[in-house]
Amino acid sequence: FIMPLDLGAKGSCQIGGNISTNAGGLRFIRYGSLHGNVLGLEVVLANGTVLDMLTTLRKDNTGYDLKHLFVGSEGSLGIVTKVSILTPAKLPSTNVAFLSCNDYMSCQKLLLAARRSLGEILSAFEFMDRQCIDLAMTHLEGVHNPLPVSPYKFYVLIETTGSDESYDKAKLEAFLLRSMEDGLVADGVIAQDISQASNFWRIREGISEASVKVGAVYKYDLSIPVEKLYDIVEEMRSRVGDTAEVLGYGHLGDGNLHLNILSSKYSDNILAQIEPFVYEWTAGHRGSISAEHGLGLMKAEKIHYSKSPEAVQLMASIKKLMDPNSILNPYKVLPQSALSPEQGS
Amino acid sequence: FIMPLDLGAKGSCQIGGNISTNAGGLRFIRYGSLHGNVLGLEVVLANGTVLDMLTTLRKDNTGYDLKHLFVGSEGSLGIVTKVSILTPAKLPSTNVAFLSCNDYMSCQKLLLAARRSLGEILSAFEFMDRQCIDLAMTHLEGVHNPLPVSPYKFYVLIETTGSDESYDKAKLEAFLLRSMEDGLVADGVIAQDISQASNFWRIREGISEASVKVGAVYKYDLSIPVEKLYDIVEEMRSRVGDTAEVLGYGHLGDGNLHLNILSSKYSDNILAQIEPFVYEWTAGHRGSISAEHGLGLMKAEKIHYSKSPEAVQLMASIKKLMDPNSILNPYKVLPQSALSPEQGS
Repeated sequence: FIMPLDLGAKGSCQIGGNISTNAGGLRFIRYGSLHGNVLGLEVVLANGTVLDMLTTLRKDNTGYDLKHLFVGSEGSLGIVTKVSILTPAKLPSTNVAFLSCNDYMSCQKLLLAARRSLGEILSAFEFMDRQCIDLAMTHLEGVHNPLPVSPYKFYVLIETTGSDESYDKAKLEAFLLRSMEDGLVADGVIAQDISQASNFWRIREGISEASVKVGAVYKYDLSIPVEKLYDIVEEMRSRVGDTAEVLGYGHLGDGNLHLNILSSKYSDNILAQIEPFVYEWTAGHRGSISAEHGLGLMKAEKIHYSKSPEAVQLMASIKKLMDPNSILNPYKVLPQSALSPEQGS
Repeated sequence: FIMPLDLGAKGSCQIGGNISTNAGGLRFIRYGSLHGNVLGLEVVLANGTVLDMLTTLRKDNTGYDLKHLFVGSEGSLGIVTKVSILTPAKLPSTNVAFLSCNDYMSCQKLLLAARRSLGEILSAFEFMDRQCIDLAMTHLEGVHNPLPVSPYKFYVLIETTGSDESYDKAKLEAFLLRSMEDGLVADGVIAQDISQASNFWRIREGISEASVKVGAVYKYDLSIPVEKLYDIVEEMRSRVGDTAEVLGYGHLGDGNLHLNILSSKYSDNILAQIEPFVYEWTAGHRGSISAEHGLGLMKAEKIHYSKSPEAVQLMASIKKLMDPNSILNPYKVLPQSALSPEQGS
């Protein structure tokens, strides 16, 4: 059996933290959100009560499903001390393809085609723009570009996981061939062994590591409807001009863009080009200003870009009910104004 | 695309009601809980506030994920007025097998084997005991027993859904053959056309309809760890003796037993044999006294069999915060004692 969650931080993160931050990660497209996978929790509340919700049952409709309050609330309502989680069967066959596309529309069509043709074996659909690949090749040791002959505008990593090695591989090969014939894919290669597959993944997972080697990184983690997802990268590029480099990559299958803006050092001028534009643009497209990274300290006051005043008020009421003295992870998640005594119910 | 939910009531239920009752149903084993599939909600609160949480994003970690409060709270915290839901791709290939097993242990082993061998194409694993089949054959019109030669103790319906008709069918046939060789399956048949498949499903979905034709039905919907799930059916049979017939069936893949006790008419004597035994037994095995049917009016006072006092108290605090005058679905879900003024925070 496997964890229904995989992420770049898997070597250092902890399960309780994954739950509290509602970590998403690389296999979200296959296994979905932790809200669907966490079966039970034990949580310590602000008043010291140990809340035992530690069931292993798949289905339990007796009262409110309180555990969801603690999934993604960043420790501000209680501290997760025990977890039971649904673990899917470990399937024996994994295949990884690394593809290139000439434009963003082809990436979108490829995603739709993959959902339909690969269906139940699709386990990851990640995308990177050329700037990401160039950066990874410059700053990561021991990786190489699987499609080195000519540069492309976009690169896509597709992974399948299934129960039949030969069938799954044949299916992925047929999909790749058809996508090239249809003009969606410019070039592509399927990993022939685990070392090639690791190289493909190392490129994708190494972008964040490579980014920090440039100097200053302004990082944004946005959910945006897939058809608009790359627009903000291009708009940002024209805003910052030559002063910074703009990278777009992420979990295309989930509509989750990681937008990194790189510069040799932090500057108020660059930041003024980025914010509040990035939040306003995202809010204007009904996106989320934090797809999976949470709000923490830095974005607590920015919650209104993604949540209505009524929703923030209800969150604050629940926070005040469950942690009246604000002792759990104070100043995080919710704006201080919503928690002040004269606000809320 | 399809709804990630299918249930016997699909002809009459409504989506808002499905959300409010956290309906489970027949493809839960494949697509999981509504907590994982509902993307956004619009809800009207007790004070008339329209709470707009109507996003279509897969990922959004900005503040508490309030929508989960309304999934399964039976309308007692708010009324669902709009929903956005994740719809999986409609896959072209569905196959259904109807199998028999000689003992419950074989049913369990078959489930484990199906999870491993059918893996990503498994979409239903339903089980029925012989009593269910006999009842369905007696009371349902136009259905017939697919395995009529000799009676078996248990029957299992397995459905696969995938993207490749010939491959999926070959896989199911190989699984069936291997399971018969291993002695897990006594006999079995794969539907050769849609009419046969409908007949298999009609048996499973018709058990509830057939039950009510006997007269009185005491219905229980329990979540129990799979290895203990059939014990309560046998214990119940020995308790009621000749006074009633006991049926066990349900979603074995989810550990969800539907326990029906049939009698020609309601009697306090029979009820005294059933309750509180059924609740105490379930609580003793850390099960749930309502897997998918909710608590409603009849079971609101029984919540303590499946939830800790601390959890019930927190539920009551949230109810009082969000609906201080108890105008939303009063007397349902939570025990009145927990909602009385001197209780809770």
